[in-house]
Amino acid sequence: MEFQLDHAKEILRRTPATLNSLLRYLPEDWSLSNEGPESWSPFDIMGHLIHGEEADWIPRARIILEYGERRAFEPFDRFAMFEKSRGNSLGDLLDRFEWLRGESLQELERMSITPEMLEKRGMHPELGAVTLSQLLSTWVVHDLGHVGQIVRVMAKQYSEAVGAWRAYLPVLSR
Amino acid sequence: MEFQLDHAKEILRRTPATLNSLLRYLPEDWSLSNEGPESWSPFDIMGHLIHGEEADWIPRARIILEYGERRAFEPFDRFAMFEKSRGNSLGDLLDRFEWLRGESLQELERMSITPEMLEKRGMHPELGAVTLSQLLSTWVVHDLGHVGQIVRVMAKQYSEAVGAWRAYLPVLSR
Repeated sequence: MEFQLDHAKEILRRTPATLNSLLRYLPEDWSLSNEGPESWSPFDIMGHLIHGEEADWIPRARIILEYGERRAFEPFDRFAMFEKSRGNSLGDLLDRFEWLRGESLQELERMSITPEMLEKRGMHPELGAVTLSQLLSTWVVHDLGHVGQIVRVMAKQYSEAVGAWRAYLPVLSR
Repeated sequence: MEFQLDHAKEILRRTPATLNSLLRYLPEDWSLSNEGPESWSPFDIMGHLIHGEEADWIPRARIILEYGERRAFEPFDRFAMFEKSRGNSLGDLLDRFEWLRGESLQELERMSITPEMLEKRGMHPELGAVTLSQLLSTWVVHDLGHVGQIVRVMAKQYSEAVGAWRAYLPVLSR
């Protein structure tokens, strides 16, 4: 499927409600458990999504539109949330993400992105030249991927509880 | 994590809202596309979830409570929805699933399940002896797994659009 800005916004604007529905007021047994050492809980993933709004998507789109390939993006810290989320409740993180996503989408509107602008190139510090369209596609896939990770992590809490049905549940071995 | 009926209901009651948030009024480019031959679109998955409410979870719980291991479950048709969903819109399927899930949860309440009842055994036609607690755990994991499948299928529509970022997006190679 080709990238279309309107299609992408359809997904991006839904993510806060999806996360609310999955996680708001959920018992901590579900929201604080992870998949084992070095893996993330739904709480950790919420912090990561917040950091993306603050430091990744819109800031990088701005760099592409202002500097093109002349200025590489700041490297993105995939572990920033372990410090930043400290002291917050899951509800705090859901609220903050919802607010930030609203701001991001407003900023995206203000950019008045044309098909020509979508082809503008920027410089990723590791991947090299990338386009604005690729950045915005990645934002969409990143949202969907982390929603998928949240439900997988939750599902795995019942890996033993399902007994013999485990054989029919591929999500438990991903 | 041990199975707890209250914990399980927390997930089961949220799934209709999660699916609404992900899919209601979504452009068909997102909802009717699958992962390739023999794979399911979000529309197909909705039909499968509906068939589960009608033919799997509560009906099997009833068989366990009424007959124990003396009567095996009816085999579940994983492809029934291709015929049954025909002529419905995605909105129809979301409405139907929401209604059926509400009915299922009411029925679950009416069963007044005690810890002893959770250990009751039934007979799966392929897996052999299983318990009510394992059936209800599987219901939860099945919900979460199919939410994960829906977002993965959607994410894959942008497999090419993300360009070099693909290397950082594990959801695209699952």
